Amino acid sequence: MAADTARVMSGEVKTESVSLSPLGAAAAPEQELLCIFGTGDLGRSLGQRLLHTGYRVVYGSRRPHSCGPLPQGAQVLSHAAAAQSASLVFICVHREHYDFLETLAPQLKGKVLVDVSNNLRKNLYPEANAEYLQRLIPGASVVKAFNTLSAWGLQNGPSDANRQVFLCGDSAEAKQAVAELATRLGFSVLDRGSLSAARELEDFPLQLFPQWRLPLCLAMGLAAFFFFYVLIGDVVHTYVKQGKDNSFRIMVSLANKVFPIVSLIMLSLCYLPGVLASFLQLYRGTKYRRFPDWLDRWMLCRKQLGLVALGFAFLHVLYTLIIPIRHYVRYKATAHSVSLIKENKTAVFDTTLAWRTDSYYSVGILGFGLYILLGITSLPSVSNALSWREFSFIQSKLGYLTLFFCTLHTYLYGWDKFLRSSYYKWWTPPAHMLSLVVPSVVLLLKLLLLLPCVDRRVTRIRQGWERTEPREENNKPLIS
Amino acid sequence: MAADTARVMSGEVKTESVSLSPLGAAAAPEQELLCIFGTGDLGRSLGQRLLHTGYRVVYGSRRPHSCGPLPQGAQVLSHAAAAQSASLVFICVHREHYDFLETLAPQLKGKVLVDVSNNLRKNLYPEANAEYLQRLIPGASVVKAFNTLSAWGLQNGPSDANRQVFLCGDSAEAKQAVAELATRLGFSVLDRGSLSAARELEDFPLQLFPQWRLPLCLAMGLAAFFFFYVLIGDVVHTYVKQGKDNSFRIMVSLANKVFPIVSLIMLSLCYLPGVLASFLQLYRGTKYRRFPDWLDRWMLCRKQLGLVALGFAFLHVLYTLIIPIRHYVRYKATAHSVSLIKENKTAVFDTTLAWRTDSYYSVGILGFGLYILLGITSLPSVSNALSWREFSFIQSKLGYLTLFFCTLHTYLYGWDKFLRSSYYKWWTPPAHMLSLVVPSVVLLLKLLLLLPCVDRRVTRIRQGWERTEPREENNKPLIS
Amino acid sequence: MAADTARVMSGEVKTESVSLSPLGAAAAPEQELLCIFGTGDLGRSLGQRLLHTGYRVVYGSRRPHSCGPLPQGAQVLSHAAAAQSASLVFICVHREHYDFLETLAPQLKGKVLVDVSNNLRKNLYPEANAEYLQRLIPGASVVKAFNTLSAWGLQNGPSDANRQVFLCGDSAEAKQAVAELATRLGFSVLDRGSLSAARELEDFPLQLFPQWRLPLCLAMGLAAFFFFYVLIGDVVHTYVKQGKDNSFRIMVSLANKVFPIVSLIMLSLCYLPGVLASFLQLYRGTKYRRFPDWLDRWMLCRKQLGLVALGFAFLHVLYTLIIPIRHYVRYKATAHSVSLIKENKTAVFDTTLAWRTDSYYSVGILGFGLYILLGITSLPSVSNALSWREFSFIQSKLGYLTLFFCTLHTYLYGWDKFLRSSYYKWWTPPAHMLSLVVPSVVLLLKLLLLLPCVDRRVTRIRQGWERTEPREENNKPLIS
Repeated sequence: MAADTARVMSGEVKTESVSLSPLGAAAAPEQELLCIFGTGDLGRSLGQRLLHTGYRVVYGSRRPHSCGPLPQGAQVLSHAAAAQSASLVFICVHREHYDFLETLAPQLKGKVLVDVSNNLRKNLYPEANAEYLQRLIPGASVVKAFNTLSAWGLQNGPSDANRQVFLCGDSAEAKQAVAELATRLGFSVLDRGSLSAARELEDFPLQLFPQWRLPLCLAMGLAAFFFFYVLIGDVVHTYVKQGKDNSFRIMVSLANKVFPIVSLIMLSLCYLPGVLASFLQLYRGTKYRRFPDWLDRWMLCRKQLGLVALGFAFLHVLYTLIIPIRHYVRYKATAHSVSLIKENKTAVFDTTLAWRTDSYYSVGILGFGLYILLGITSLPSVSNALSWREFSFIQSKLGYLTLFFCTLHTYLYGWDKFLRSSYYKWWTPPAHMLSLVVPSVVLLLKLLLLLPCVDRRVTRIRQGWERTEPREENNKPLIS
Repeated sequence: MAADTARVMSGEVKTESVSLSPLGAAAAPEQELLCIFGTGDLGRSLGQRLLHTGYRVVYGSRRPHSCGPLPQGAQVLSHAAAAQSASLVFICVHREHYDFLETLAPQLKGKVLVDVSNNLRKNLYPEANAEYLQRLIPGASVVKAFNTLSAWGLQNGPSDANRQVFLCGDSAEAKQAVAELATRLGFSVLDRGSLSAARELEDFPLQLFPQWRLPLCLAMGLAAFFFFYVLIGDVVHTYVKQGKDNSFRIMVSLANKVFPIVSLIMLSLCYLPGVLASFLQLYRGTKYRRFPDWLDRWMLCRKQLGLVALGFAFLHVLYTLIIPIRHYVRYKATAHSVSLIKENKTAVFDTTLAWRTDSYYSVGILGFGLYILLGITSLPSVSNALSWREFSFIQSKLGYLTLFFCTLHTYLYGWDKFLRSSYYKWWTPPAHMLSLVVPSVVLLLKLLLLLPCVDRRVTRIRQGWERTEPREENNKPLIS
Repeated sequence: MAADTARVMSGEVKTESVSLSPLGAAAAPEQELLCIFGTGDLGRSLGQRLLHTGYRVVYGSRRPHSCGPLPQGAQVLSHAAAAQSASLVFICVHREHYDFLETLAPQLKGKVLVDVSNNLRKNLYPEANAEYLQRLIPGASVVKAFNTLSAWGLQNGPSDANRQVFLCGDSAEAKQAVAELATRLGFSVLDRGSLSAARELEDFPLQLFPQWRLPLCLAMGLAAFFFFYVLIGDVVHTYVKQGKDNSFRIMVSLANKVFPIVSLIMLSLCYLPGVLASFLQLYRGTKYRRFPDWLDRWMLCRKQLGLVALGFAFLHVLYTLIIPIRHYVRYKATAHSVSLIKENKTAVFDTTLAWRTDSYYSVGILGFGLYILLGITSLPSVSNALSWREFSFIQSKLGYLTLFFCTLHTYLYGWDKFLRSSYYKWWTPPAHMLSLVVPSVVLLLKLLLLLPCVDRRVTRIRQGWERTEPREENNKPLIS
């Protein structure tokens, strides 16, 4: 959060450093000289930024006299000469060309080498670029840094997702020097440890929502399945049996059936693994054996499952709220009034129906409110402000309450429809009934776990107790 | 925010370190040896995590040969032998058993002792566990750390509310060593100062929304009071006087009366203490005397009051928006059309009513929009990005504007109802009139404070001026 | 985020340190002595806070015996004596009075001077206050710190926008000392580099949403223009031509025309500069020439443009959802039913209209959902958790999708209205048609950029390629 305020300020800095390089120059009064190997795009962008911030820059190039346009104010020398002139060298060269650096080992001895490289995909090489560099030039201190920024971010300074510089390396002094440089450029720095973390840093920029893939695929799959399910039941069935085209229902009515169903199932899938894990621990009698891989992976994406579920619930709410301004609904209301008059009837008020629908709306709204609360506490800055006791209170206690409200909302919606055969189109149950299976199971299992005897056993296991029949001697309480 | 990105990365780390301990092992190339005293749950969880991250672990136990199952790869020695083999010792022993450590003082001399203990409730002991430990073994450097994580978090690595390791201690080197360890485990570290902060750290995991209790209790109390108030006025009164059962109104109509009332009162209670404080300062003629305790406590929970108020406003909005799809409302609309026809009347359009209701909705929406804006700027990451001038502009200026809009919304809703006796059920005023009292008072008082003469005086007091009649000499301007 | 959790804890600390100074005193066991120059408001507030945290405080004053009421427990000495007694001196004196400090240069030699001053407006002096102070007393180590906090925050400890202490200075040891002090006071510290950053820190508290001004002014201008445009077309035109007063439409109908229009235009203006920049780069054949200033400034406020657009979209949604409970709409529905009966007609269901309006609502809802998603990822804590690849995926790909959905929503709303002359009041096109111009242009230009041949060229330029006809030799690929 330090850097959040820094953002506001660095926004200022950026404009100033771009427009007023003299002022920027003042920010590094000693006019430190830095060396950049590589006159490609990255080298030029970085050099431009360093010059704007007030550093002096010397490029190392194979052909110092013909290496293309470089930022104004930068020198160009041979690699060897450039390396000797500065104590810190940025390596802006592709990994494939690192081997030529081996010949410069004498000149690079004792220097700080900043490896900013990334690869095109994961696991392309057996070792991280920075580790390879360190192996080539053992006499230098390699620091992996800046690679998680975009080229644009490197050139233009900190902005939204370009604010954090991760670094790692085996030399504390070298890391310190790079950290100070990054701070002066306006970034905030996070030390990720020794050089062995380089692979992790090199993989970071390649990732695109790795933890969101499974939940999103699942949501898409469920949405597609239920869309066709209700399409067949509502539109195709009506067309085949009654010859009536009500395909216009696709845009709102059908969408508003699919979204809440997907939302409810996703929400319950978010709580199912926790329940399963408890039963597995109960069965095994210990918490010290690892869960199967699938359960582990499932538990790691619970947050994403929940947030996708919240997205669908949000759409469901909006689709529900526009119901009364739909043409079809207005037409039906008018037609209803007209038909009552023509048949000389009066409007009938059904108290049970009023109670049921009002309860159904009310429970749904409360469930959605809790849903939103869960979503807000998932925001990184909010969850970081909570102690784990508070966090688990919200995500677990309020989470199950949300699931309960949303399930109840669906039961109240369904009411006695499960009794009426007209709802079973082509002998299939209505979609909302299918959506109730998983949440009902989760709530039932959770209820079982809340039984005092079961709860006591789970708590003991969670506290480290083990059911180890063969080694009875170990059951004695240990001080330590 | 460093750690926010770290979360994404540590998510990666976690999966990897769990599934691929060889890779994890690479993260601590020197295979440092750490000692853990205590083979209970905490000791085992911690040891497992350390082994996965690539450390070597030795347990100190009273009975090294019969201490139960330990993580694979860990050694077990006697306490003395274990302590001597490592420079850093985790104390995973309950405080009640600390006394045995005194006998190990010679072996623990010069070591870093990490106290990870928590107590079952606050103020159980006169001094913090870590301070007690330091007193027992003065030759060691005690660091309080890791105690704010859950056991689950300690075992599985950083996740939502388990990302931050707080530490405190009197030795900078010892803290540095623990900080590096925690960073390598994937946590982000916050130094909380000397060992005297240990009590604070030990109390942290015990807290469950301490600042939210008062606002939530208040909200519950107000909601309960107004629920029964409108229940009696709307349902019981109708039943007694007209013999008509309209209890179905409870679920939506009554809820939608209670929620906005509670929201408005809570919002005004959020601004009342600031106004009172100003008048108190005016009366006292100085800002240097402390406010009474109740006012202090009230001012400290203003943010929570406001957010609870926002929650109720959010529910009010949803309850309002589902009005047209309620059975009762649809029935009334149809019945109205039918009765018009039967009585051969035409629908009447009332321009004043249209103006009034439209203004009422419009003002309500704008008020709610500002409300949401206030809520968003309360998010930690957003408020940290604001300068205090910006923050106070939003929370104060826009806050009073929000209160004004919401109060106006309620006045427009009430309109001339206060004149009509039919609204006074059993000689009590309608609930919305009661809800207007506090906000009206707050707005009036604020208006008084905005009068130029009053405002000037308050500003001078805030800048440090004091009305000190007896010591006239002090009123002279001071350079310094 | 460290500090977010710290907030919760510091909330605790604050109450405690206020009410229990003995406990607070324990937090600085060595009872370090600090010196404050200046007995004005700031000096007194700071002294009070330091005393509560457990420091000893000595004030330096011109008239030690008549300097007004000071916090209980503080000493007062002459400037010279006070300076000599402590190693760290807070300068709580206005800049205009700094010159007297020059005479104290011998006593201040080797001391850490903390400059906490701010100015009343930007650019009041040629150099920053802290730099001026350093120039006056070259023998001391000046650190700029605490000036970004409000006086209230300094007196009462960390709270929402008073959590971060920025510091800068040329001496690392001096900064370290101040950082430790600030940490002990409960703040979190961000080092902003050398003393030349002081001006930036001094300007920070003066800013009031500098990046929001242009977007907000633009939004106000657009809203005003379109309000009068639809006022003339809808209300004035009806009054003049038909003599009918439908001014009640102002509050909701007109607002609900203006808000979506402004939102759509602002959203497209948020994507226009990126498209323009691409075409400029294409035209110039290089990415290394700076953009014109107006484009630079425009690109820097894209986030703000987008968020203001989201605000208007949010209002549009609420205004739309209350439509069915408006008096006018209810009247129209009833009147429609009544007239159908009287003319003995039946309600007509128009499948095309149903398809069109349902699609229009559906596309609008999906667009709004994406809009909200864009807003959420703009939250600092969320955008910091994303890699730049993820961030640019959301803000660019999903951003254009949002723009596409919202534009399509408006086209579906317009449908064939552009063909019907009754919509052209006084020969002007309806407002929604005007709002479609910019988004359509942006989407068209973006489509052009997505053409494979153009896209390939832009990508190459972004990767550093340059079209430099005269210097053909430079086009050869470079290793480095």
